[in-house]
Amino acid sequence: MQNMVYLDNNATTAVAPEVLEAMLPFFETQWGNPSSLHTFGSGTKRHIDEAREKVAALLGTADPSEIIFTSCGSESNNMALLGAASAIGGTPHVLTSQVEHSAVLGPCNKLEKDGCRVDRVPVDGVGYLDLNVLSEALTESNGPLLASFMWANNETGMIFPIAELAEKIHEAGGVLHTDAVQATGKLSINVQDVPVDMLSISGHKLHAPKGVGALYVRRGTRLDPLMLGGHQERARRAGTENVPYIVGLGKACELALERLEADTCREAQQRDRLESGILATCKGAVVNGVPACRLPNTTNISFEHLEGEGTLLMLDDIGVCVSTGAACESGSIEASHVLKAMNVPRSQMQGAIRFSVGRYTTEADIDYVLEQLPSIIERQRVLSPHLSD
Amino acid sequence: MQNMVYLDNNATTAVAPEVLEAMLPFFETQWGNPSSLHTFGSGTKRHIDEAREKVAALLGTADPSEIIFTSCGSESNNMALLGAASAIGGTPHVLTSQVEHSAVLGPCNKLEKDGCRVDRVPVDGVGYLDLNVLSEALTESNGPLLASFMWANNETGMIFPIAELAEKIHEAGGVLHTDAVQATGKLSINVQDVPVDMLSISGHKLHAPKGVGALYVRRGTRLDPLMLGGHQERARRAGTENVPYIVGLGKACELALERLEADTCREAQQRDRLESGILATCKGAVVNGVPACRLPNTTNISFEHLEGEGTLLMLDDIGVCVSTGAACESGSIEASHVLKAMNVPRSQMQGAIRFSVGRYTTEADIDYVLEQLPSIIERQRVLSPHLSD
Repeated sequence: MQNMVYLDNNATTAVAPEVLEAMLPFFETQWGNPSSLHTFGSGTKRHIDEAREKVAALLGTADPSEIIFTSCGSESNNMALLGAASAIGGTPHVLTSQVEHSAVLGPCNKLEKDGCRVDRVPVDGVGYLDLNVLSEALTESNGPLLASFMWANNETGMIFPIAELAEKIHEAGGVLHTDAVQATGKLSINVQDVPVDMLSISGHKLHAPKGVGALYVRRGTRLDPLMLGGHQERARRAGTENVPYIVGLGKACELALERLEADTCREAQQRDRLESGILATCKGAVVNGVPACRLPNTTNISFEHLEGEGTLLMLDDIGVCVSTGAACESGSIEASHVLKAMNVPRSQMQGAIRFSVGRYTTEADIDYVLEQLPSIIERQRVLSPHLSD
Repeated sequence: MQNMVYLDNNATTAVAPEVLEAMLPFFETQWGNPSSLHTFGSGTKRHIDEAREKVAALLGTADPSEIIFTSCGSESNNMALLGAASAIGGTPHVLTSQVEHSAVLGPCNKLEKDGCRVDRVPVDGVGYLDLNVLSEALTESNGPLLASFMWANNETGMIFPIAELAEKIHEAGGVLHTDAVQATGKLSINVQDVPVDMLSISGHKLHAPKGVGALYVRRGTRLDPLMLGGHQERARRAGTENVPYIVGLGKACELALERLEADTCREAQQRDRLESGILATCKGAVVNGVPACRLPNTTNISFEHLEGEGTLLMLDDIGVCVSTGAACESGSIEASHVLKAMNVPRSQMQGAIRFSVGRYTTEADIDYVLEQLPSIIERQRVLSPHLSD
């Protein structure tokens, strides 16, 4: 078997060597508690501040105090939705989409159970948000409004019109959170140009480790903490700071900003070459989503009448890592809620594979997949219980 | 200046070299997402399972599925209290003590705001829990009961009678959580002998990094998640698993179990030598708490009529790290809520210093402090605005 070909960068990314190098001193020697009064502890605060500035820079805010460090993207999303709803008080009207990440849908379900009206705006066949339904929901809205729309979809890469959404939500007097976990490091994000009120990011999607994230909170946005107790993060997130990972996230954001143009340009070329190659050589391959409006690194391709898991496992056998569009829970294969919301035809639903290239993807990786995939798809078709035509 | 003398192990501990070594492969090569279907990702699950077994072993449960990994001790405490209250439903009667950590007091305050009756049991002059007040509160209790009492106090090291509390709380039909963040690795903990329902631990108090913790939840205990979304940790804690730190926490628990007797025996001797030396050589030194019932590594000593912060800073100048009993917030020095609850005399309140030895404390460290401290206290007395006698 050749080296691993990793085309699953939307699931997680390699820790960048520069990030690991930046973190190591905080495991080895500078392990003091930032809340301590002695120099050994309090001296680590400076490194947290520097990291906060780097995250702020990537997101385009001049005010680092708008960045709260969290333990992951899921925590950022939970904190934004539950914390804002709590600060607003009562039962705000919640507006979101049908294709959000589970860490947004979960808190929305809880708010619904707690008595909030939750509207989940549908998408069309290629993943565009239905702006008519959105307008309708906004018209019907009375009382405080809390909205959460993802910047880009993790499964299809489809990008939502966040600037336009911010305008509409703000016109209606609402607060807008965006889950930018997949968008950060892949698109230019600037909270001055696109005035969202809250924005979630996750370290491990941009070459920092799993277990660190951040929530951008625009100054003046009312937000109750999710984690109560100590006064860390200006009393917005209790718990001794994870100094090594915070430093690592800072470094990862710095790298993402430096490399954004070069990385995404190369990734888009690799993704396009992969996608057009697959469409040309694999029978029954259909892209979910539209090219123009996607993350530069992602393509979600359905192989008609096939089971994605079979394709994934055959690719796994030859060292290629990808995801299915579908989430597999407790052994039962359930179709992706994203593809379901897009009303993807039944013949395409189960056969989706997400390919997501990344910083370390090589041309040889793309060559290898283009060389191997057609025969895998052919073998799958022979094994498949469905008729392929 | 000589090497640092670190006597602040209750604030945080050094990452053990064995722990860092165990974590490194998960930054460098095995960085897959445990939820991925491909071998590279799913192969990391085994390491999470192994870590879970090691944490379970340290806590004395044979069922690793009773361990939930979290991002810190504060999260564990928040999850236990808010999650159990939510699962119980309505407004349970909450019972706790006046000397808990802020990550327990914070959630209790929130529950009170949400309509729960919260009784905070006082302690006596040396930190013993007032069991009469506790019994009274239990007698008055009707409806579901949720109790949280720390295993050992972070400031004084005083140990609560958790086995007795478990019996009383269970007799009253209640659920008992214990914050064992300071006790774990310093005392023998066994949830079979001491049948608490939930127990919080924190990695960075036992030589794993800051940013990982665990919550023990006895099978059958009703608990709603704090973090909603993904199905990680059997749907009890959403968020991609922090594999390196989870592996690190496992290793740290394994080491703690192996070394418990040797480490704590040596630490107790060092602590006792430090304490008796200070009491013999420093005028106006008084121990807060009683020797018999404390963590083996902790002594909290008040220097009468002095400001602890001044002593701390002078010790810091010569490379010795300690804590004050008091928490310093936004520049204003507020007396410790623990010493306040103990009704420590005013003359002792502000002058408290917590010395907490640890695995890497040497005899030379103790010698150095015993040699330097008397003159520091003398100089402090000269500088102090109070009359020293």
